[in-house]
Amino acid sequence: MDYYSGQISKLIEELSRLPGIGAKTAQRLAFHIINMPKDQVEGLARSMVDAKNNIRYCKQCCTLTDKEMCPICSNPKRDQKTIMVVENTRDLAAYEKTGKYEGVYHVLHGAISPMLGIGPNDIKLKELMQRLQEDVNEVIIATNSSLEGETTAMYISKLVKPTGIRVSRIASGVPVGGDLEYIDEVTLLRALEGRVTI
Amino acid sequence: MDYYSGQISKLIEELSRLPGIGAKTAQRLAFHIINMPKDQVEGLARSMVDAKNNIRYCKQCCTLTDKEMCPICSNPKRDQKTIMVVENTRDLAAYEKTGKYEGVYHVLHGAISPMLGIGPNDIKLKELMQRLQEDVNEVIIATNSSLEGETTAMYISKLVKPTGIRVSRIASGVPVGGDLEYIDEVTLLRALEGRVTI
Repeated sequence: MDYYSGQISKLIEELSRLPGIGAKTAQRLAFHIINMPKDQVEGLARSMVDAKNNIRYCKQCCTLTDKEMCPICSNPKRDQKTIMVVENTRDLAAYEKTGKYEGVYHVLHGAISPMLGIGPNDIKLKELMQRLQEDVNEVIIATNSSLEGETTAMYISKLVKPTGIRVSRIASGVPVGGDLEYIDEVTLLRALEGRVTI
Repeated sequence: MDYYSGQISKLIEELSRLPGIGAKTAQRLAFHIINMPKDQVEGLARSMVDAKNNIRYCKQCCTLTDKEMCPICSNPKRDQKTIMVVENTRDLAAYEKTGKYEGVYHVLHGAISPMLGIGPNDIKLKELMQRLQEDVNEVIIATNSSLEGETTAMYISKLVKPTGIRVSRIASGVPVGGDLEYIDEVTLLRALEGRVTI
């Protein structure tokens, strides 16, 4: 890329290392950034460094936060006895957007994957088990419906069951508004198995 | 987004202002950045600010560069008497990738667009006309094949013709490897009009 000057090339290269940003998008972003007002560029740069430096795990639920305890764990209105286990902070955000879940979360930061060499000790499972020594009514497992997510769900349910705490798994089935024609067989079978009397 | 802590929300918001970056992508990028090694985050942030602060127009061809004159204009091997006029630095890069063009460029930074209120004085046309007072053999107009690009091409050719310098326009036609079936009528007509004897 010697037709671009050094600093443009460097910026394009750094941007193209981000996930989902190919060479073309990196170019477009680089030229956009060069044309942005100076204070906006500095603001964006500062946000990145600040977020990187100050974000840590919530000491209770392990979600990413810039305080010792995240806004959900420190909210007295949330039901601290119901814990939803999710793979990452984005999944937590997805459930928060529903606005209907009143309990708290536990963020694993991954899922068990023998293929990728990720075992139970590589995710925040120990931290979950510690939380269960307090007064907890229910653990809702909301890991993804993938092979890794299901494996993790099974593993957790086996760990939690002996404690006598209720363990549940979010339902699999046809997405609302989904057209049966376009839904894969596994999901269709799950929906059938999970049918409820109406 | 109060389920994310302040600094994550801020980073997501800043990222989602970039072109082509929606809310989901901004989220994914933000969490990626938080998980990147600290020196990489600082490197990316620094590249942005450096590029913003140091990039200027090449004093000859107006492309974006971090030196007084861009690498192409200051390359003695390039034919300084052939000037290809492009709309922006990315278009210049596209032609450079072919590796076959030996001349130099002139970057307009836009195209004439009465609809958007962009007139001849809003793009780097004055700078082009100044360059034509030197010894120039040919001006190749490589603006886009859009309404604005064509308008700009016509305008430039009218300006340049009285100087006696050869003016040419890159060919329109069917893209190499293109399937006629999927090509629009205007392009097909252009390809017909521009047919060459073989």
